[in-house]
Amino acid sequence: MRKVAIIGVGLTKFGELWDISFRRMITEAGARAIEDAGIDGKRIDAMYVGNMSAGQFIRQEHIASLIADQAGLTPIPCTRVEAACASGGLALRQAMISVASGIHDIVVAAGIEKMTDVLAEQTTEALATAADQEWEAFVGATFPGIYALMARRHMYEFGTTEEQMARVAVKNHHNACFNPCAQYQMEITVEDVLNSSPVNTPLKLLDCSPITDGAACVILAPADKAREFTDTPVIIAGTGQASDTISLHDRLTLTGLAAAKKAAELAYKMAGVGPNDMDLAEVHDCFTIAEIMAIEDLGFCKKGDGGKVTEQGETAIGGRIPINTSGGLKGKGHPVGATGIAQAVEITQQLRGEAGKRQVNGAEIGLTHNVGGSGGTVVVHIMKRGD
Amino acid sequence: MRKVAIIGVGLTKFGELWDISFRRMITEAGARAIEDAGIDGKRIDAMYVGNMSAGQFIRQEHIASLIADQAGLTPIPCTRVEAACASGGLALRQAMISVASGIHDIVVAAGIEKMTDVLAEQTTEALATAADQEWEAFVGATFPGIYALMARRHMYEFGTTEEQMARVAVKNHHNACFNPCAQYQMEITVEDVLNSSPVNTPLKLLDCSPITDGAACVILAPADKAREFTDTPVIIAGTGQASDTISLHDRLTLTGLAAAKKAAELAYKMAGVGPNDMDLAEVHDCFTIAEIMAIEDLGFCKKGDGGKVTEQGETAIGGRIPINTSGGLKGKGHPVGATGIAQAVEITQQLRGEAGKRQVNGAEIGLTHNVGGSGGTVVVHIMKRGD
Repeated sequence: MRKVAIIGVGLTKFGELWDISFRRMITEAGARAIEDAGIDGKRIDAMYVGNMSAGQFIRQEHIASLIADQAGLTPIPCTRVEAACASGGLALRQAMISVASGIHDIVVAAGIEKMTDVLAEQTTEALATAADQEWEAFVGATFPGIYALMARRHMYEFGTTEEQMARVAVKNHHNACFNPCAQYQMEITVEDVLNSSPVNTPLKLLDCSPITDGAACVILAPADKAREFTDTPVIIAGTGQASDTISLHDRLTLTGLAAAKKAAELAYKMAGVGPNDMDLAEVHDCFTIAEIMAIEDLGFCKKGDGGKVTEQGETAIGGRIPINTSGGLKGKGHPVGATGIAQAVEITQQLRGEAGKRQVNGAEIGLTHNVGGSGGTVVVHIMKRGD
Repeated sequence: MRKVAIIGVGLTKFGELWDISFRRMITEAGARAIEDAGIDGKRIDAMYVGNMSAGQFIRQEHIASLIADQAGLTPIPCTRVEAACASGGLALRQAMISVASGIHDIVVAAGIEKMTDVLAEQTTEALATAADQEWEAFVGATFPGIYALMARRHMYEFGTTEEQMARVAVKNHHNACFNPCAQYQMEITVEDVLNSSPVNTPLKLLDCSPITDGAACVILAPADKAREFTDTPVIIAGTGQASDTISLHDRLTLTGLAAAKKAAELAYKMAGVGPNDMDLAEVHDCFTIAEIMAIEDLGFCKKGDGGKVTEQGETAIGGRIPINTSGGLKGKGHPVGATGIAQAVEITQQLRGEAGKRQVNGAEIGLTHNVGGSGGTVVVHIMKRGD
């Protein structure tokens, strides 16, 4: 397998983009990535797009063809991949495998979701189709409910508190203040979180990531050709993907994701590194409890200590292992199909030293952790500054 | 890139499967493929699933996780790919690329669609989301209307007749009579087609492929390990995928698919063969006119002669280039996400000499041609009997 590098990245503003269509969002993210890579669009060989549910959100399937068309990229092969909120991470992985295989050289990995073109209750209903319809969604278990079950059990087993969960949101909103693309560039306090409307106890409104429109894009090339386009290539050193039961009731534990542990194990092994080598990570904080479980699953702290280390500031910028410097899903926003790619954009900018006021000093290696549903799919990538 | 072989295939019955759930269909196809390959399920490294729109048809996204779960395959990586009716062909291509890259050895490529769990008008509406929503579906152009435009223009430019189109349906129903998995195992006549209800003039009911439930599965391995599992491996010698504008109005021609020509050119080149080397092909006859255009685009006859050669019997079993020996989408049925994989199942069975009464004598090399929408995505594979 050939080594693969990221040579360009692009992101739209994340938010409720009432005046920007699906078509315009994806071409905007793509154009920024092409400009960033300084590449002629004609050199692009293929594209992979992560998207959860344009079929339900904008009544449009077959979006890879639509995007190739809109972007003037026909006749290159364009493929949509889907695994709920892990769709973006899977698009990155497929794009990487295609370059590694030698079948393509320059490949775009994109992610997009346009979530605000339907009524809010339809959005919730569409998102619930990422859970098991027959055993979860049908009986009313939407995602806040599913993650609330995990939070309750985590509190019971490890003494994790609502304050500790609130601190995840406070940190990620703080980081988002320094990210011009973030949906919520505003500080919140622990009290704000604790006093926000209950959604599914113990989760409150500010424990939940928002509904977001947005698109993200990275451009990949074989590592040995990357310097042709950029002085700061970022190598994808490891990739790991794993599956688990789609619904909670068949799992051995509710306080962690087996698929996250497996995906991380595979990615660490491929990259020849471990959790202690990481300088930072973007993790899938769809709910505050999800970030706490993620840092445990990834080996950044002992099982059960996720709340504690968050409280102690270890996951803040300047801490031992900065988590979600971009603002995460909570602060930056969570356009579901775009999230996995947006995570790779953040790590790339950090490893290049281009993250401005949210820069992790001397960052050389980072990780992305992207979850589909309640952990039925997890994909982890490890990225290193190019030599 | 490593050479890749098909070592096992499985198919459910195609039809209106009121009493079989999505979950059961996919595990049935998978179990048959595993049995056919004589492989222990534990050796499977990854899975790709083609599916157009479980989100709209059964309100379930994230189906790759669901399927891994149902099939007892967790924690292997499972990825859904979508390109409307070309979803299956794209799943095969991604699975092939992943084996070729070396990241996986034994990979399942599956396809599934459960289309009859919603009302017929909802099915039509869901299928129309494969067309451009803003320029086609919104103004009422569903797929029969779109293909009717192409048929009209083909008739005008080349003198193609309704009788010639009818002969495609007659031939494919005839072939389906010898396929125990086919939806319509019954003969029809040219008169039946011409006298069937008008759908979109000049297309009548029997010019259209049906609404179908079904699942299909193939298992891939590196070619140099294939003999461990089977005495009759089938090599995937070529793969080609291309995109085009999603809607008709921007294309240079209505009488052929530029993406089909491009995908075929790429697949022929990779396999080092040409159209005259093919012993048979499975092509995407979603409408009768689509088969006529396909055999022209693939180079099996001169542009404009598709109707004529069909009338002359050249595409029948025993003819110069047998097309859709399985019954095609028209006779076998068209569970949209499964179709591309079902085509690979048919070619594999033919190259192994296991196609029973529909066997093409001495078949050594064959082709599959799978179309998304009205040609916004096309994927072509070339398969050869293993040495």
